[in-house]
Amino acid sequence: MKVGALLTSAGINIGLCVLFLSLYSILRKQPQNVKVYFGRSISRTHRRPLLERFVPSPSWIMRSLQYTEDEILNTAGLDAVVFNRVLVFSIRIFSVAAILCVFGILPLNYFGQDMHHVLIPSASLETFTIENVQERSRWLWVHCVVLYIISGVACFLLYLEYKHIARLRLHHLVQTNDYPSRFTVLVRGIPKSSHESFSSAVDSFFTKYHAPSYLSHLVVHKVGKLQKIVMGAKKAYRKFRHFKGTDVDQTCRSVTYQCCLCGVSSNSFQLLPIEEQERENPSVKDSNLNLPDEECASAFVFFKTRYAALIVSEILQTSNPMKWVTSLAPERDDMYWSNLWLPYKQLWIRHIATLLGSIVFMFIFLAPVTFIQGLSQLETLQQRFPFLKGILKGNYIPKLVTGYLPSVILQIFLYTVPPIMMLFSTLEGPISHSERKKSACCKVLFFTIWNVFFFNVLSGSVINQLNALSSPKEIPMQLAKAIPLQATFFTTYVLTSGWASLSSELMQLFALIWNFVRKYVLRKKGDSDLIFSFPYHTELPKVMLFGLLGFTCSVLAPLILPFLLIYFFLAYVVYRNQFINVYWTRYDTGGLYWPIAYNTTIFSIVLTQIICLAVFGLKKSPVASGFTIPLIILTLLFNQYCRKRLLPLFRTFPAQVLIDMDREDQRLGRMDDIHRGLQCAYCQSPDTDDIPLEGIQTSSTDEDKCSSSGESSCKEPVSDLSHPTLKGLPVDRLRTAVRSLAFMIRLQKRGLSA
Amino acid sequence: MKVGALLTSAGINIGLCVLFLSLYSILRKQPQNVKVYFGRSISRTHRRPLLERFVPSPSWIMRSLQYTEDEILNTAGLDAVVFNRVLVFSIRIFSVAAILCVFGILPLNYFGQDMHHVLIPSASLETFTIENVQERSRWLWVHCVVLYIISGVACFLLYLEYKHIARLRLHHLVQTNDYPSRFTVLVRGIPKSSHESFSSAVDSFFTKYHAPSYLSHLVVHKVGKLQKIVMGAKKAYRKFRHFKGTDVDQTCRSVTYQCCLCGVSSNSFQLLPIEEQERENPSVKDSNLNLPDEECASAFVFFKTRYAALIVSEILQTSNPMKWVTSLAPERDDMYWSNLWLPYKQLWIRHIATLLGSIVFMFIFLAPVTFIQGLSQLETLQQRFPFLKGILKGNYIPKLVTGYLPSVILQIFLYTVPPIMMLFSTLEGPISHSERKKSACCKVLFFTIWNVFFFNVLSGSVINQLNALSSPKEIPMQLAKAIPLQATFFTTYVLTSGWASLSSELMQLFALIWNFVRKYVLRKKGDSDLIFSFPYHTELPKVMLFGLLGFTCSVLAPLILPFLLIYFFLAYVVYRNQFINVYWTRYDTGGLYWPIAYNTTIFSIVLTQIICLAVFGLKKSPVASGFTIPLIILTLLFNQYCRKRLLPLFRTFPAQVLIDMDREDQRLGRMDDIHRGLQCAYCQSPDTDDIPLEGIQTSSTDEDKCSSSGESSCKEPVSDLSHPTLKGLPVDRLRTAVRSLAFMIRLQKRGLSA
Repeated sequence: MKVGALLTSAGINIGLCVLFLSLYSILRKQPQNVKVYFGRSISRTHRRPLLERFVPSPSWIMRSLQYTEDEILNTAGLDAVVFNRVLVFSIRIFSVAAILCVFGILPLNYFGQDMHHVLIPSASLETFTIENVQERSRWLWVHCVVLYIISGVACFLLYLEYKHIARLRLHHLVQTNDYPSRFTVLVRGIPKSSHESFSSAVDSFFTKYHAPSYLSHLVVHKVGKLQKIVMGAKKAYRKFRHFKGTDVDQTCRSVTYQCCLCGVSSNSFQLLPIEEQERENPSVKDSNLNLPDEECASAFVFFKTRYAALIVSEILQTSNPMKWVTSLAPERDDMYWSNLWLPYKQLWIRHIATLLGSIVFMFIFLAPVTFIQGLSQLETLQQRFPFLKGILKGNYIPKLVTGYLPSVILQIFLYTVPPIMMLFSTLEGPISHSERKKSACCKVLFFTIWNVFFFNVLSGSVINQLNALSSPKEIPMQLAKAIPLQATFFTTYVLTSGWASLSSELMQLFALIWNFVRKYVLRKKGDSDLIFSFPYHTELPKVMLFGLLGFTCSVLAPLILPFLLIYFFLAYVVYRNQFINVYWTRYDTGGLYWPIAYNTTIFSIVLTQIICLAVFGLKKSPVASGFTIPLIILTLLFNQYCRKRLLPLFRTFPAQVLIDMDREDQRLGRMDDIHRGLQCAYCQSPDTDDIPLEGIQTSSTDEDKCSSSGESSCKEPVSDLSHPTLKGLPVDRLRTAVRSLAFMIRLQKRGLSA
Repeated sequence: MKVGALLTSAGINIGLCVLFLSLYSILRKQPQNVKVYFGRSISRTHRRPLLERFVPSPSWIMRSLQYTEDEILNTAGLDAVVFNRVLVFSIRIFSVAAILCVFGILPLNYFGQDMHHVLIPSASLETFTIENVQERSRWLWVHCVVLYIISGVACFLLYLEYKHIARLRLHHLVQTNDYPSRFTVLVRGIPKSSHESFSSAVDSFFTKYHAPSYLSHLVVHKVGKLQKIVMGAKKAYRKFRHFKGTDVDQTCRSVTYQCCLCGVSSNSFQLLPIEEQERENPSVKDSNLNLPDEECASAFVFFKTRYAALIVSEILQTSNPMKWVTSLAPERDDMYWSNLWLPYKQLWIRHIATLLGSIVFMFIFLAPVTFIQGLSQLETLQQRFPFLKGILKGNYIPKLVTGYLPSVILQIFLYTVPPIMMLFSTLEGPISHSERKKSACCKVLFFTIWNVFFFNVLSGSVINQLNALSSPKEIPMQLAKAIPLQATFFTTYVLTSGWASLSSELMQLFALIWNFVRKYVLRKKGDSDLIFSFPYHTELPKVMLFGLLGFTCSVLAPLILPFLLIYFFLAYVVYRNQFINVYWTRYDTGGLYWPIAYNTTIFSIVLTQIICLAVFGLKKSPVASGFTIPLIILTLLFNQYCRKRLLPLFRTFPAQVLIDMDREDQRLGRMDDIHRGLQCAYCQSPDTDDIPLEGIQTSSTDEDKCSSSGESSCKEPVSDLSHPTLKGLPVDRLRTAVRSLAFMIRLQKRGLSA
């Protein structure tokens, strides 16, 4: 690939980026897009004059840069701050790397051989890589020194970030002192016994062994199929109620729905205000739709202090490690209820199965990637598909094919990966949304690094040879040979995948289109309630991949660095804006994405060093390669130190902090309030829309009761659910009951339309 | 190698074995060897008639077989039981394997090809391996079925043993309820502060955060060089006192020492009975030899209950994981004092350094092994050393060289390994003897498996090719090709190394020779006090290696199994005898050798399956190799299950058991006694001979004080050690003090001889 082709590609992408950014700055000012671009803040923008609304402006960039870390922490949670710090780290380290490599190494590479230099636009990009340096060159020590500086600075910055985030995590722990999850232990694998229920088993166990700190408990209930049907009916009912809720002026008026295709007005429903409707049908809300449900071998156990809960969650309880398994409970909003009733015994096998599944998926995915790689090498393509020769002869098309198309196709294929990995993570059986997303994030990360980096590098140079893994000793050598050559591909990958994905992230294309369809095709008034939480499992792997590309290419093919730096700057602006305005933070891992990012960065640094070692070896520079070995050892030592010094803080909470928090609460007399709140915190209610339909849910009345009548009625609010009158009923009778319920709801619907 | 040569080798070894066993049965009856063969039991054998004493008898075998598991547990500890169970497991599984393979597979292999069968004694051993089976043979399914049966039975037996040992471990925990270590937490990395001592820092920290359960503490003191000299002097003094202690009738009499070379009697010392001597020199025992010592950043912290100690040891204390690091303390006798004052910060780097060191050692060791391997292949030897051709032409010498010599030389080299690995483990910084030995055991195990098994197999077939590791994908193929060929070497290895090492273990050659030298050359009366503890770090790897050989050769070259089975039977008899009679159990890991043995066995089984997969592949039997893959997956699943279900019990103690023990003690009113005993349990005293000289030691008076005056004087018995009068003294003054002390001791010596 020539410099000209690269610049063409860069030009196209910069143009697209500017276009998208301008489009964004216009679209965000349109009142109908408020829900798309201000999903979380729902800022009531004042009506602007029409002209101003259609003039692009960069003001949002300014604003995005002005947000402080505290603002992000408060609005988007610790995970968002971690993501932000990863970007800050990347900008810092690649600024240093870009300065060193562009001014120090690029000239060395370019003048590395006595050759005739053509004009720069038509110079091959390989002229700028280490490929161009002569063997046994006495200038290779510069590369080695730069590698030392980059590694050193990277480790130093990593350590600073690690310490900073660890401090933030502790600070976050202290700040969020009213979280009920800190007092709650989730117990799984409660042993089944014929003579007592799970509830009394939990009670007797914790009263016996943890009496001083045990407060109360709540057994998890599994929702039967019947109850699911009832819930479906309820949901349908709520939907109808909802139409009226969106009506702004809350008066009785007829709503006319126009069919989107024929335009005929369907004046069939007339909505009543809530009060009126509830006055008419008081029975619906409080109707005893509760059907018998099953107790699970899991329970939430509440403790008097945070420290007591921590102890119980960390200590092995009995001599059978598969029984009475304890762990700190996730937050209420973070609970992934439907996995909660999986038997604990099953989990380890699910873990292995999904691991195997995702590895198999990783390897099946190789086929399209290989094909794409073929596209980027014109000669191979022409050999394989001779009929293409005519098309590929022009001047413009080959540039497009080599510079643009491969990574676009790869990008499209990559879009299918996160949902599949998320599915695997769901099957794994995590009990919280955040855990599921973190697990998916790791899977996507492995996938991305393997399939985008390794496989591209290895198969790019040995295209027809699929079993590259047969000899791991050869891998550094192969990488050393391939990376300078593949740097072209990676540079275009940064341009297309990186920049374009940021634009699409900013534009929120899917949400925008959906909003448009909803408003102008389906003719729905009001905004969609759907606000997403930030997709860490797709975005973090992306950023980490670009970090890996940056490190590995820095010394070998420094031309990638300016483009990468632009990417990171843009990402910094875009993601900050998105965190503040678009996404809703329903759950938070408490900074647990940082160890993933840290490990990936260390992996990238060490891989870079190993590749450089191999390159120096290939260039026959014993001094440079000899000096690289201690660097690898030092980096690994640094890693080990960080693991010992800081990682434990991300695995557990320190006793000292928890005890101090407990004492502070006791001193201020807040403890009782907190204890009172605990009971309701983990009520299993279907009333929140965001709980999946198949979740464990009790009747809506429980939560209402909890919030109204306080502690006494709250004590085991689920236990009265197992409605005695329904218990003995045969299935056909229950079916009749459901039918009559459905009829009731239909009646209400008619009442609404009357 | 021919069957005849193998039988020759077997004959020699059986002869040697019978000889050694008979010799043992005679030697053990000699009264002068009581200390050697009954070190731990010191049985007062009644004087037998001279004739009976020199007639070999197998009665000890009978007695060894009669010991019950409880007897072993009570006399030799849980680790001995674990070792015993490993042997029982090996006998069981290899009995099954031997029956199946010798009657099922051996005939199949022997008649596997249409060939002219020579007489069995001159048949090549390879005729009995899977090498002899034709490609695409339809009988390979038998091998596959046998592999399934062996793997299944092995997993089943492993599970039974695992459960049994886990139960024993819990039982042991309950039985040893008076161990002070259960109440004691060792705190390391106490932060240094200028305004308070470590002792007060510990006190304020634990009073603040663990007030309800905190009892007291004891700061560890580092012994300065000066104190070491004093201790040396004291030791010398005790040595003199000791001569008299061995005197049985405790009356004043002259002891005559004969010079061993010239025989002149040196009537220079006359020993007094203890009382007399102490009446004369009361100052020596109580003399204030205490010199200023340094406080370490470590302390023993005592808690009121076992459960409280467990909690503190498992919870992260502060937000700096390198400070206030807690762990349950080892037993007093198990303490490795000199490592206790290493700064905690250093440990991680020591860990890495010793790991690297032992890996480097593992690879340096390859040289002699390669040379030895050369010896076992006559052709290579003759090519390399042409002058040997004449010698190697005979009939007997080649048999000796191929069948015997290689493994003897290897054996001798292997003797240097355990001490070196022990050194590495010491440098690693473990705080207990048992931990050090366990770590050395792992290192020796890795070493043995790598250098005896892998390197022999891989270099045996590709002798001149040192970099066998370059392609791990090839390893199973190489193993598959090599193991049937190398089975000969392994069979002789079992005969020589296995049987011979058991004989030498039984004979206690070193101790016997030392005893002889001591008694008849150095002319010392009385027995040596030196009783060793069982060398798990040399014996367990040996047994595990034979297990590995058994598994890998079982299906491929079943001729090894009978010899192996004899080895295990013999080992069972010998080790039980040694546990009961010879070794002294000073410390115990509480069964922590079992996970090592279990992991190695699982590794052996999976390796066997992978090798069989490769062999079936080489033999072009897709059915057999296809059916082996699910077997590997099933075995790994079994392993994962065991890790989840049983391994946690070997990492920590279950809360339920500890709480029950605490309650039982409180109910019976034993708690106060236990608390009183805690204070003295970790006194740092130099009076026990087995503490290494460089250990952390306080004056002997402390312990005496503790035992005499009880609790009140025991409270921080070390704090009064920092003798204020000596604190400000310059070094030369201290030197003078030491000189005067030495003079004092010399005076006393003269007093003794007067």
